[in-house]
Amino acid sequence: MGSKETDSGERQAASDLSRWQVPAGGKGFTLAQCDPSAQPLTYPTKAQTKAQVTELASEIDRLQNLFYADGRFALLVVLQGMDAAGKDGTVRAVFKETSPLGVRAVSWKAPSDVERAHDYLWRIHQQMPRKGEFMLFNRSHYEDVLVPAVGGALSPAAARQRLRQINDFERMLSENGTVILKFMLHISAQEQRRRLQARVDDPDKRWKFDASDVRARGQWAAYQRVYETLLRATSTRWAPWTVVPADSKIHRNLIIATLVRDKLASLKLCYPPGDPEIRGLLIQ
Amino acid sequence: MGSKETDSGERQAASDLSRWQVPAGGKGFTLAQCDPSAQPLTYPTKAQTKAQVTELASEIDRLQNLFYADGRFALLVVLQGMDAAGKDGTVRAVFKETSPLGVRAVSWKAPSDVERAHDYLWRIHQQMPRKGEFMLFNRSHYEDVLVPAVGGALSPAAARQRLRQINDFERMLSENGTVILKFMLHISAQEQRRRLQARVDDPDKRWKFDASDVRARGQWAAYQRVYETLLRATSTRWAPWTVVPADSKIHRNLIIATLVRDKLASLKLCYPPGDPEIRGLLIQ
Repeated sequence: MGSKETDSGERQAASDLSRWQVPAGGKGFTLAQCDPSAQPLTYPTKAQTKAQVTELASEIDRLQNLFYADGRFALLVVLQGMDAAGKDGTVRAVFKETSPLGVRAVSWKAPSDVERAHDYLWRIHQQMPRKGEFMLFNRSHYEDVLVPAVGGALSPAAARQRLRQINDFERMLSENGTVILKFMLHISAQEQRRRLQARVDDPDKRWKFDASDVRARGQWAAYQRVYETLLRATSTRWAPWTVVPADSKIHRNLIIATLVRDKLASLKLCYPPGDPEIRGLLIQ
Repeated sequence: MGSKETDSGERQAASDLSRWQVPAGGKGFTLAQCDPSAQPLTYPTKAQTKAQVTELASEIDRLQNLFYADGRFALLVVLQGMDAAGKDGTVRAVFKETSPLGVRAVSWKAPSDVERAHDYLWRIHQQMPRKGEFMLFNRSHYEDVLVPAVGGALSPAAARQRLRQINDFERMLSENGTVILKFMLHISAQEQRRRLQARVDDPDKRWKFDASDVRARGQWAAYQRVYETLLRATSTRWAPWTVVPADSKIHRNLIIATLVRDKLASLKLCYPPGDPEIRGLLIQ
């Protein structure tokens, strides 16, 4: 994932992060190995960490312009995680500097009647980024495995079939120019409790609280099990998963901003030459 | 447009801007009255002007969160203007601080075959913001009057019919909760020449240059005439036009950011109370 152009300090950072990438095929990966409170990238102070995230966000904005001009690729960033894992916060922190002309975000909710009358990838396909665009998925097609598998509506065999279909779908996207990065925001049950409690207690946040969050929390172990299966089955060369320790918001932002920046830098983007005929043209 | 909550200095600012709003019905309005180099809002230094734009962009981001939580309105911002008038730059400067989850932008291009096989508002309607969302139009359905009217494909009577249809369409949107702000970015022919020349001369900008820009420039007077007709016919109580003097980029940004902020502040947005049942709930 590290780009050759980065200096040695940054190569070091990228290599520290590589152990959080789920190996293609999932061999040897367990979610239990991943400590939600880990901080694989650190700066001496909190202020320096925040400043680095801001710097990376500006760099991602500059790279977005180049990405658009270059026009060869589209970028899909998938964010998954338990309730309150920080998906919204990640979108805000990492892509806030990017012009709305270059980035779109979709928060996937339960499908509508019309959507439910199609295969589960139908609505997903419609929201794919065009060339030159970043698309951020807050939740994704992975919910179509997670939720029914935990709830018992999807048998293990049917879940395996969906995971294979997703791999095939993502491979097709990748072969046609969509760069895919998938992040599982990994928080601890204690940290989730703290964040949900804050939503209950703060009158300005109470509207965000949904009773279904508490239900899903009651199925914590089942969700972790299905997540592990899903991460192992769908981390591929063309669409790798990274587990992001997410108990600390600023360290979560730092990791994701670093990996997005590194990926963009590795694409060797360049400005198209423009029509050679207009060289030296004088506008009247 | 000025909100009652703003302090008296800001009320002053808003009232200085009111003369740039095209009166509903267009009575007495001419584009020739509008000086593209005017700076109706000013701060003592360029650095202070820029800082004010950044402050307004942050305020718009905070108001976006509240706008989403409130959930009663959608916001449509229409940006029109000649090539190089600064539509992209406005999106970037005014909405860069806003999370991609709260704002979307569409750059309208020539319609596809499928789009052309429908009425001209069909594709526009599909891209309307949902409640809680900001949508930014870089160009818009107004191009479906401008381009054919200048090119001669639309008779004056057919153009008047479209303008009436647009008023009816925008009224329906407004009556169903979409707040509409329309900005005509008004630059001088000299400033456009300077900006297009910069695209030709800068190797990193050359890819942006399109030969059709020069053709449209050759029809400058015709475009200005159709713009004047259009602004007079479609500035309404429910969807007013503001002519924005746009020869100076930072002053253009300052005007638009001020008017967007003022409009949002005038909506008396508030957080919904949340389910009273969850008050005092302890998360296990």
